[in-house]
Amino acid sequence: MMIFKRLYDTKLAQASYLIGSAETRQAVVIDPNRDIEQYLRAASDEGLTITHVTETHIHADFVSGSRELAARTGATLLLSDEGTADWKYAFAAGAGATLLKDGDTFDVGSIRLQAVHTPGHTPEHLTFLVTDTTAASDPVGAITGDFLFVGEVGRPDLLERAAHFEGTMEEAARTLYRSLQQFRRLPDALQIWPGHGAGSACGKEIGAVPQSTLGYERLTNWAFAEGNEQEFVRRVLDGQPDPPRYFAEMKRVNKEGPPLPLARFDELVAGGALVIDVRSADAFAAKHIPGTLNIPAGRSFTTWAGWLIPYTRDLVLIGGDDSASCAEDARRDLRLIGLDRIANCFGPAIVEAWARAGRDIGRVARIDAGSLATQLAAGAVAVVDVRSAAEWASGHIAGAQNVPLGYLLDRIESLPKDRPLVVHCQGGTRSAIAASLLQAHTSAVVMNLAGGFNEWRAGGFAAEPSLAGTAEGALPLRGRNGAGAS
Amino acid sequence: MMIFKRLYDTKLAQASYLIGSAETRQAVVIDPNRDIEQYLRAASDEGLTITHVTETHIHADFVSGSRELAARTGATLLLSDEGTADWKYAFAAGAGATLLKDGDTFDVGSIRLQAVHTPGHTPEHLTFLVTDTTAASDPVGAITGDFLFVGEVGRPDLLERAAHFEGTMEEAARTLYRSLQQFRRLPDALQIWPGHGAGSACGKEIGAVPQSTLGYERLTNWAFAEGNEQEFVRRVLDGQPDPPRYFAEMKRVNKEGPPLPLARFDELVAGGALVIDVRSADAFAAKHIPGTLNIPAGRSFTTWAGWLIPYTRDLVLIGGDDSASCAEDARRDLRLIGLDRIANCFGPAIVEAWARAGRDIGRVARIDAGSLATQLAAGAVAVVDVRSAAEWASGHIAGAQNVPLGYLLDRIESLPKDRPLVVHCQGGTRSAIAASLLQAHTSAVVMNLAGGFNEWRAGGFAAEPSLAGTAEGALPLRGRNGAGAS
Amino acid sequence: MMIFKRLYDTKLAQASYLIGSAETRQAVVIDPNRDIEQYLRAASDEGLTITHVTETHIHADFVSGSRELAARTGATLLLSDEGTADWKYAFAAGAGATLLKDGDTFDVGSIRLQAVHTPGHTPEHLTFLVTDTTAASDPVGAITGDFLFVGEVGRPDLLERAAHFEGTMEEAARTLYRSLQQFRRLPDALQIWPGHGAGSACGKEIGAVPQSTLGYERLTNWAFAEGNEQEFVRRVLDGQPDPPRYFAEMKRVNKEGPPLPLARFDELVAGGALVIDVRSADAFAAKHIPGTLNIPAGRSFTTWAGWLIPYTRDLVLIGGDDSASCAEDARRDLRLIGLDRIANCFGPAIVEAWARAGRDIGRVARIDAGSLATQLAAGAVAVVDVRSAAEWASGHIAGAQNVPLGYLLDRIESLPKDRPLVVHCQGGTRSAIAASLLQAHTSAVVMNLAGGFNEWRAGGFAAEPSLAGTAEGALPLRGRNGAGAS
Amino acid sequence: MMIFKRLYDTKLAQASYLIGSAETRQAVVIDPNRDIEQYLRAASDEGLTITHVTETHIHADFVSGSRELAARTGATLLLSDEGTADWKYAFAAGAGATLLKDGDTFDVGSIRLQAVHTPGHTPEHLTFLVTDTTAASDPVGAITGDFLFVGEVGRPDLLERAAHFEGTMEEAARTLYRSLQQFRRLPDALQIWPGHGAGSACGKEIGAVPQSTLGYERLTNWAFAEGNEQEFVRRVLDGQPDPPRYFAEMKRVNKEGPPLPLARFDELVAGGALVIDVRSADAFAAKHIPGTLNIPAGRSFTTWAGWLIPYTRDLVLIGGDDSASCAEDARRDLRLIGLDRIANCFGPAIVEAWARAGRDIGRVARIDAGSLATQLAAGAVAVVDVRSAAEWASGHIAGAQNVPLGYLLDRIESLPKDRPLVVHCQGGTRSAIAASLLQAHTSAVVMNLAGGFNEWRAGGFAAEPSLAGTAEGALPLRGRNGAGAS
Repeated sequence: MMIFKRLYDTKLAQASYLIGSAETRQAVVIDPNRDIEQYLRAASDEGLTITHVTETHIHADFVSGSRELAARTGATLLLSDEGTADWKYAFAAGAGATLLKDGDTFDVGSIRLQAVHTPGHTPEHLTFLVTDTTAASDPVGAITGDFLFVGEVGRPDLLERAAHFEGTMEEAARTLYRSLQQFRRLPDALQIWPGHGAGSACGKEIGAVPQSTLGYERLTNWAFAEGNEQEFVRRVLDGQPDPPRYFAEMKRVNKEGPPLPLARFDELVAGGALVIDVRSADAFAAKHIPGTLNIPAGRSFTTWAGWLIPYTRDLVLIGGDDSASCAEDARRDLRLIGLDRIANCFGPAIVEAWARAGRDIGRVARIDAGSLATQLAAGAVAVVDVRSAAEWASGHIAGAQNVPLGYLLDRIESLPKDRPLVVHCQGGTRSAIAASLLQAHTSAVVMNLAGGFNEWRAGGFAAEPSLAGTAEGALPLRGRNGAGAS
Repeated sequence: MMIFKRLYDTKLAQASYLIGSAETRQAVVIDPNRDIEQYLRAASDEGLTITHVTETHIHADFVSGSRELAARTGATLLLSDEGTADWKYAFAAGAGATLLKDGDTFDVGSIRLQAVHTPGHTPEHLTFLVTDTTAASDPVGAITGDFLFVGEVGRPDLLERAAHFEGTMEEAARTLYRSLQQFRRLPDALQIWPGHGAGSACGKEIGAVPQSTLGYERLTNWAFAEGNEQEFVRRVLDGQPDPPRYFAEMKRVNKEGPPLPLARFDELVAGGALVIDVRSADAFAAKHIPGTLNIPAGRSFTTWAGWLIPYTRDLVLIGGDDSASCAEDARRDLRLIGLDRIANCFGPAIVEAWARAGRDIGRVARIDAGSLATQLAAGAVAVVDVRSAAEWASGHIAGAQNVPLGYLLDRIESLPKDRPLVVHCQGGTRSAIAASLLQAHTSAVVMNLAGGFNEWRAGGFAAEPSLAGTAEGALPLRGRNGAGAS
Repeated sequence: MMIFKRLYDTKLAQASYLIGSAETRQAVVIDPNRDIEQYLRAASDEGLTITHVTETHIHADFVSGSRELAARTGATLLLSDEGTADWKYAFAAGAGATLLKDGDTFDVGSIRLQAVHTPGHTPEHLTFLVTDTTAASDPVGAITGDFLFVGEVGRPDLLERAAHFEGTMEEAARTLYRSLQQFRRLPDALQIWPGHGAGSACGKEIGAVPQSTLGYERLTNWAFAEGNEQEFVRRVLDGQPDPPRYFAEMKRVNKEGPPLPLARFDELVAGGALVIDVRSADAFAAKHIPGTLNIPAGRSFTTWAGWLIPYTRDLVLIGGDDSASCAEDARRDLRLIGLDRIANCFGPAIVEAWARAGRDIGRVARIDAGSLATQLAAGAVAVVDVRSAAEWASGHIAGAQNVPLGYLLDRIESLPKDRPLVVHCQGGTRSAIAASLLQAHTSAVVMNLAGGFNEWRAGGFAAEPSLAGTAEGALPLRGRNGAGAS
Repeated sequence: MMIFKRLYDTKLAQASYLIGSAETRQAVVIDPNRDIEQYLRAASDEGLTITHVTETHIHADFVSGSRELAARTGATLLLSDEGTADWKYAFAAGAGATLLKDGDTFDVGSIRLQAVHTPGHTPEHLTFLVTDTTAASDPVGAITGDFLFVGEVGRPDLLERAAHFEGTMEEAARTLYRSLQQFRRLPDALQIWPGHGAGSACGKEIGAVPQSTLGYERLTNWAFAEGNEQEFVRRVLDGQPDPPRYFAEMKRVNKEGPPLPLARFDELVAGGALVIDVRSADAFAAKHIPGTLNIPAGRSFTTWAGWLIPYTRDLVLIGGDDSASCAEDARRDLRLIGLDRIANCFGPAIVEAWARAGRDIGRVARIDAGSLATQLAAGAVAVVDVRSAAEWASGHIAGAQNVPLGYLLDRIESLPKDRPLVVHCQGGTRSAIAASLLQAHTSAVVMNLAGGFNEWRAGGFAAEPSLAGTAEGALPLRGRNGAGAS
């Protein structure tokens, strides 16, 4: 059984389609734009997993989201292999895409898609015939992209007028005519799911009804009614709206390959940007991009940002709720202390993208007080206490070394190189930051005593000086806001 | 009668104060941080106008908002003129600030503030005694900044340890001791309104109660209890938390002058950025920064952005609700077509800042169809119709010239230079964009027939060809989304 | 040109349709549910006005919104006149509905709808053939309600199994079979827009694709494939899900007439509820339901609510943003002073509903200080000053009478009955409340000096005592929050 | 160390105070109003637990939140035992309150509060002297309620003028005078934290500064300046604003005992209301009020609500995020099917209130497929399959009994009474509802096979008929929205 959802962007007057199989809960997205979160949400709402991503042609009016959506989900990317050499997807091989020729089919669970080459609007243009194999062997509808609209056809002059391939539009119009003659032979009952609605500059007079049927189009669409090729060519080229100037750039980008967030991330890092991951210490410990600094959002964020982030470098933030959102609170907090050089902000999805690209993932191992006591006794680890000198003085792990977090980078050479390092603070906030810092700047194995000195003390392990005399009263409060804390 | 509001930032553990006069509804803000919107909102909530802005000292732990708040509101900026040559506000003269010496007073309606020089934490530090003249001649309280906290005093070692003025901290501690001896003579009942709460690194053990009284501090604050200067010096310098590294930068910025949004704007423009004002056409017509391009947010935003914005330049946006917010929708729309180079985003307040700086303000004059008919008949103006060729063909103002908006910049030389230009489209959206474009690229007087050809036709003015034969049916719909519209 | 929008409720698995004419911007809504705000928003988004409302049949699974939507918009309501006597709309005449028989047509601008009687699911069931007359004389699609779904047909057993009309389901199944045989003759290309999607209990195995075509349904829908009537009857009655118990109640409600908000309002008022309109004084002055009390939301709301609302009556609130929202702030404020008896809450739309029902509308006339001075001098009006005795003592309009707002109801008999009454306070808040109170409890003509004594004094009109000696200082402040104010 | 937070309601011009101990993280709330969520949030933000709740006096201008906050948190409730017999808290004993006499003290961690009897505004009025025992033995400030305001005193005429205790106000004024003479002896430096700000009708000319000091009040407050008792009495009674009418009711309510949500809940249930708990099945299983029906919010909510909720009863909902919010989605969904009789809506806190009152708590035990198989084989349990007959027919647990959920209540007598009942459906949604229904209407022990038949089948346990032949394809999809599902 087929699940079907149309996603429409009113400003672009552009439609994407999510089609799924009720049997396998797999889904394909066709013609996604760059706002890929919407497809992830829609699939999730329907209980579907996106396993295939494809598009009808190289779009001229928006940045395609196909490449990024496939990279994000790990879905199979399918791209047209039709058309002339000028209109081949340059990034197809690099992206591991499957290439489609006229007549090729692929299955998304119980749903079968067949690519039909329908050139005219563009040389490589595909239409997808969609068959619900649980219902019939005949297709239920066609994703027609910019080939056939409701009441209109895709303009064949864009390559010439927008992408400046001179002298191509008349031939494209003839090709379009022939594609229409081929396509008209399909059944009346075929649903037509086009790529644009009223208002798009990809056609002249596109209708405001979201979809149509082939029978109705044959009845009402001027392009089917016009039986004379020459006259068709004249009419289809006449009175087309001026193609917006940016179409040329979109053609280029979508052919060469829309930029991926990870590429942008790499570029920023290569350019010297410092990456600050503001996710929780737990999230960072579980999975992070090696070399990034973890300063979790929270009450002491500003203080540690001020300690550890230089004013001389561009900054990249990782945080927020998803790939589209950004850590706005962190941005505001950094601004309050003059750290304005936020070059970019990535959602947590960038960490997933990193992992999916097969790159090494960073993790921070935890250790508990009991294990630490044992290993410390065995001389198997060195302990770095990153609390302040005052906290250290009021009681610390016997055998530890004190390097307050703010000075950790300055004194990094003083740390043992022959053993794993266990970092700790009072309650776990500072040691999480310290662990990320040590991982980024040393080759040491780093562990975090996440429960901090609180856990150590509660466990009754060896401390100096004797804890009996420690005045703890004022510490917790001070610590809540500022430098002395947790 | 006095109105009093404390604004507290939990992450900075920092307090600002808004104090107003119920009689005159004037108000002063003391020690604002860079998030200046909060003070504007608070004043508005209380029905107050901010007429004065001041600060106790050159802050080390956040970017001061004094300069920007004064620039934004036109309030009098008051800054300390005490302290050594090293600690003078370098931007005071340029910002037109009033300088304050020990003992100076200023009135905010019925409220009087007196500056008291209380060096120690910093050499130039002022405390403000606040008197409600409608109630008593004695002060009701003191804004003590980082001189006196609840249960603590401001640390005197920051200049040496954070700003690296070597060898100053002992002398500063002695100065602080003497300031305290002076200050302790004031009445017990004096309220103490400090600049920081628990958690700030500007003091050692700051209390968690928001405010105190001088009598209670004399009773409980160790700094008042310590009667021996030498011992005070020892104690105050002992056990201070390490000053976060960024304090040095804050000192520098706040002394030299925190950057103003207008300066940042100027810098971006000087660096070649293109400014896109996405406010409504009405707001832009009423007041804008000359040379900026107006593409109002809305259904055709993406199309016109794609037509008119080059991919090769950095972009600056003006839009959103206030000075802090940004035009997030516009940012997303631009991203969809690959226009990612948003260098910065300013709220509508940047236009106010421009005006307040005494710079020329741009405006777009409106003209109605009747006046246009008269002036056109008299040859006093030239009409530029920025609709598409198809719309032009289906009916246009007799005597007008057609240059579709997308090509306006290319054909700008073809426009008359001897008369004012009246631009129009069908319903006013495109002509607003066109007007901004012509103002930016020509020296012509530009007017907008905001009612467009719709108004002209409804008024029955001279058109070509005869309107009788015009088929208008499909136009409005197409126009709603895209290139052919309003 | 046709505009088409499907509105789908996932929990009901139910579809409504908004169909408009691009030429006239008129629209029809078919099968609305009770959440009528969604249709108003959708029409507004598309620039359409809802001029017609209809439904395919008497729904069993939700309360129909047809009656309320038509009443709200003033649209023509069209209802089926087919079927047996048991299944006639009982409220049709009272609601001024137009009745539809098989074959009847009506036009919504350029869009023509034809009613086709398709009994089976219910006896009165209509299907609407929709023709875009600007494109073709053939219909583009059919709104099939619960007659034909994607892959399924509407169950014919509901009347028996849910509404308990015993012994009807077999005959209904036969009728459905004949309706299908009739319907199958329409063209393959006809779009099928059904009333339900997967998950609805109105059919057995409804498909998850939003729409279909007649040709595809003939190919794949078992109900078309089954050519033997007896066998069809057996199959269609076999394995139907149990109809949820509430279906019987829905049938009854939708036949007799779903309740209108205005009827509910009337019922509450008849039951003794006190109506509090918390909209702004301006909105209330412009249009209100006579007899209601205006206490505008704002800082003094709680005080005046406490003064004027008895604890012994049920309360009805009018406020919020639209017909669906409610004045939540007012509800919270009332709760703080123990006024918990909120029987209901209506949006501002109830005032529109009142007006549309042809009932008298209340208004509050404004008067300015100059006109008041003239009329007062001529003895044409009496002035009621509703400020406190203290404010009165410190200066008042010569010749006015003082009745503090809190006592107005107690002393209402003391007011002149022979002249219009002009109420005023200091700045306009209290007099707005007073005006509503006097209108509700007297037959006097009431006017509001909205500028209050502030305007009178600023205008230099006659006051007692001489204003020279008045100490005004503290008043504005006190007034901001409480009883003494504006 | 003391933690201090003032919570101010601008419409009531009323202040509550949260005071905590940094050492023990305990806190007291003084003078809470009925919006108790704010205190819970504030305490949570500061890492505090509310262990004590008290109030200065029987408030006249809002419903006290003391009783409810203490009941909600389990905190000790402390109430005045001073004053005449007419002004004793009638609910004190029932609420288990601790009574306070002049001079009584209680400790909240390191913070000590001492009650000082300060009659005048009311006979029972207490002022709380607050001492931070970690800092000094002298109090840091006084919570003065409506005894002493900034620049004003609490009016002594309310009992006579608002609560209508005739002839009391002059004596109250004299009492107030004497309270002031007592209180003035405290130190100048004492902070004054009053119960109201500018705008309250509990005083005449209350200042707009949030707090003051005793020394400053002695200097500027007219009430301290007036040394002649007779003259004081005259002045304090002169020119008081009229007390809003609702004050009398507030006095009564706050003396007799503000209503608790649980009492309201009991009253509704006693009146015949049906309680629907729309929380998740997991939350309900963990803890619920016995006898309530669990229909979790979600896609099938409307269907099951329609099946199981009668139109003839008032409804009470339990849901939403906290005690203040309500299940607005559920309300809308019910409205769509005409279930409008929502008498009230309670947050999840009502379940906590129920538990804290020592009443029995309902739970739903879970069982897994393996355990079930064992127990079923042993004849220790009976299995009730609440899926539809069609689902049953396509495969079910061997030995189970089928009663579709919609008919469960009708056939409840047919269930075994000698063994525990295990309910299940396909995936767990329906069985959760069924379990709540069976618990409410039988005395059986009820368990839920939450994994449903899916888990049973996956485990390969005995089913009928043989599962090999089952066609499962279409089931999951249908199930997603409606009656046939999970």
